[in-house]
Amino acid sequence: MGHGITLSIDAMGGDNAPASVIDGIAKRAKSDPDIRFLLHGDTAAIEKLLAKRRILEGRVEIRHADEIIEMDAKPSVAVRRGRGSSLWRALESVRDGEASAMVSAGNTGAMMAMALFCLRRASGVDRPAIAALWPTKGMHEHCIVLDMGADVRADAADLVKYAVMGTEYARIALGTDAPRVAVLNVGTEENKGRPEVKEAAEALRDMASLPDCPFQFEGFIEANAIPMGLADVVVTDGFTGNVALKSAEGTARFVGDHLRGAFEANWSSRLVALLAVASLRRLKRRIDPRRVNGGVFLGLDGLAVKSHGSADATGFDAAVELAATMSRADVINRIAAQLETSPAAISEVSE
Amino acid sequence: MGHGITLSIDAMGGDNAPASVIDGIAKRAKSDPDIRFLLHGDTAAIEKLLAKRRILEGRVEIRHADEIIEMDAKPSVAVRRGRGSSLWRALESVRDGEASAMVSAGNTGAMMAMALFCLRRASGVDRPAIAALWPTKGMHEHCIVLDMGADVRADAADLVKYAVMGTEYARIALGTDAPRVAVLNVGTEENKGRPEVKEAAEALRDMASLPDCPFQFEGFIEANAIPMGLADVVVTDGFTGNVALKSAEGTARFVGDHLRGAFEANWSSRLVALLAVASLRRLKRRIDPRRVNGGVFLGLDGLAVKSHGSADATGFDAAVELAATMSRADVINRIAAQLETSPAAISEVSE
Repeated sequence: MGHGITLSIDAMGGDNAPASVIDGIAKRAKSDPDIRFLLHGDTAAIEKLLAKRRILEGRVEIRHADEIIEMDAKPSVAVRRGRGSSLWRALESVRDGEASAMVSAGNTGAMMAMALFCLRRASGVDRPAIAALWPTKGMHEHCIVLDMGADVRADAADLVKYAVMGTEYARIALGTDAPRVAVLNVGTEENKGRPEVKEAAEALRDMASLPDCPFQFEGFIEANAIPMGLADVVVTDGFTGNVALKSAEGTARFVGDHLRGAFEANWSSRLVALLAVASLRRLKRRIDPRRVNGGVFLGLDGLAVKSHGSADATGFDAAVELAATMSRADVINRIAAQLETSPAAISEVSE
Repeated sequence: MGHGITLSIDAMGGDNAPASVIDGIAKRAKSDPDIRFLLHGDTAAIEKLLAKRRILEGRVEIRHADEIIEMDAKPSVAVRRGRGSSLWRALESVRDGEASAMVSAGNTGAMMAMALFCLRRASGVDRPAIAALWPTKGMHEHCIVLDMGADVRADAADLVKYAVMGTEYARIALGTDAPRVAVLNVGTEENKGRPEVKEAAEALRDMASLPDCPFQFEGFIEANAIPMGLADVVVTDGFTGNVALKSAEGTARFVGDHLRGAFEANWSSRLVALLAVASLRRLKRRIDPRRVNGGVFLGLDGLAVKSHGSADATGFDAAVELAATMSRADVINRIAAQLETSPAAISEVSE
C-alpha cells in the first residue's frame, strides 16, 4: 500500500459519534495497513468501542479531550471557548506535526473557524475553500467543486486561487494530468454573470494560454452541466456552491422518495419493486453519497477533511481514505508550490 | 370556465416554434373556451399550422412579424435592433392593452430586457424577478421560487419585494391564504449568510408581525429543504436561484439516466423495467417539468410568462394556462396594491 502515515481523528464529532467514527477507522485499517490513528475524545467511550475492534490493536493512540463541540454551536463561540475540545485537539495534532491530516464529522462552521485559527491560511490565500467530489457521468465519475461553503463570498482573485487549488486536488483524486477548469455561472456566454465571475474567467483564460499551465480552461459552466462531466474542477463562491450542492441533495432525495412511492402504489408495483431490487441497488451504489464523502479544506497550512455529519462507518471510512490519499500525495505542498509559480496572473485580478 | 381574455403569443420563440406553440395553444383552446389569441410571427408558417387545428378557428388573430430573436442573441442587441420581432410585438400587445398577458418560449435574457423597456418596471420596483413553480411534497405540490435569473444581484430591499410579489403569486397559484415565506440561505441559524440576506430576513420578520400582513415568515431555508415543501415562497437573488434550479434539473436528469442504466444492465433487469413501466410513468407524471412550465415575470407593469425554450405542446400549454390564471386573477394589480400598502417596512431596508 502507500507509505506509513498518522491521521488525527476527532472521535466525538458527528451525529453518530463516536461509534461510527471508530467503525469507520476500523474499516479503513482493514483496507490500509499503513495508517496509524491519533484519536481525540472521551477515553472511556473510545476504549469501550476499541475493545470490539481487534484490527485497531496497536495502531491507535487515544488523546483524552473532555469537551465536544455541539453540531449547532456558533463558530465564533467554538473558537473562543473550545480549546479543550476533541475538534480543536485533532487540528492541533496536524499543526504540531504529529499527524499529516485530520478528519472530523463535526460542526462544519466551527471546524473551518478553528482551522483558520489553528492551521492558519496558506501563503497568498485570503479565503480558504471546502472542495467536494460531485458525481458525474463521463471519464472520471466525479468532478471537484469548490467552494462548498467555507465563505459566503469570493472575489475574482479568490476564484482564480480556487482553480489552482482545485487543479492539484483533481490531479491527485481524479488522476488527470491537465484538469478541465470551469467557472460556475448562469449562462455560458461571455457577457453573462456577475462581474467577479467574468473577471476570474478572463484571468483563467490568460493563465491557461501560458506554457506549463497545469489546467485547461473551459470557460463558464451551468449547474445542470456539472453532473454531465463537462469539467473536472468547478469554481464558485461558497454561498452559491453550498446552495447548488444542497439543491442537488434535495432533488436526489425527492426523486428517490417518489420512486419508492411509485413502486409502493399497489400490489403489482410492489411485486415489480421486489424484482427491481438488484437494479436499484446498482443505481444506489453508483450515486451513494457515502462513497464520495469528504470535504477537503484547501488553502490552509495543513490538511483537514470534513466528513458529513450524518456519516455512518462507510461514510467516515471514505473521508479517512480521502485524507490518506491527499496526505500521501502531499496536496498542501503541491498547492503551495503552484500558488507560488502562478502569482503574475493571480495578482492581475488581486488589486 | 373563467371570463374571456385575450393572450398575446410569440409564435416564433423556442426550439420547436412555431409548431409546438400552435399545438400548445390548440390544447389550451380545447380546455378553455374563453381565451382568444393574438399570434405574432410569420403569417404563412402560422396559417399553414392553423389549417390543421379546427379548434382555433375564429379564436386567433395573426399579426405578421418578419423578425425572429435568436435563442443566443445578446439581450442588449435584441432590444436595440429587435423592434420588428415577434417577441417585441407580443409584448407591445400587452403594453397597448390589446392582450392581458403574453407568453414566449424564446430567449429569456432578450425577453426580460425587452419587457423592461416595453412594459416598464412597476412602481417601487428596482429589479423585476422571474418566479417559477418548484415541485415539492406536502400540501401544495409546488412552491414559488424567485428570482430565477432576471438579475444576477438582489439587495435586501429587492428580496423583501420578491417576498411581497411571490406572496400574491402563491395566493393565486397555490390557493393558500397566508403563504409561508422563507429566504434561501446556507444555513437556518440567524448568524449565517450574506449581509443582504440577513437584513432582508429581519425586515420580513418585522412585516410578518404586523396585522394584515399577507404572509407568514419562516426565516431561512436551505436548498435541500425546498422540495420538502417547508415554504410556499422562497426568495433569493437571480444568480443563486438560477444555479439552484439548474442544479436540481441536472440532478434529476442524472438520476433518471442512471435509473435507465440500472434497468438496462442485463436481460432480467430489462424484464423488470418492462413490468415497472406503469410505476415509472406515475413518477414521471408527478415530476414532469412540462406540467409546471412557465416563469412569470413579476415587478413589471404588465404580465409576461416565459415558457421553457425546449417546451413541446404540453409544456407550452402549461405556460399559457399559467398566463390565463394569473391574468384572470389580476396578479399585476394585486402586486401593485401590496407594494403600495407595505412601503414602511420596505423602505426600512431601502436606504
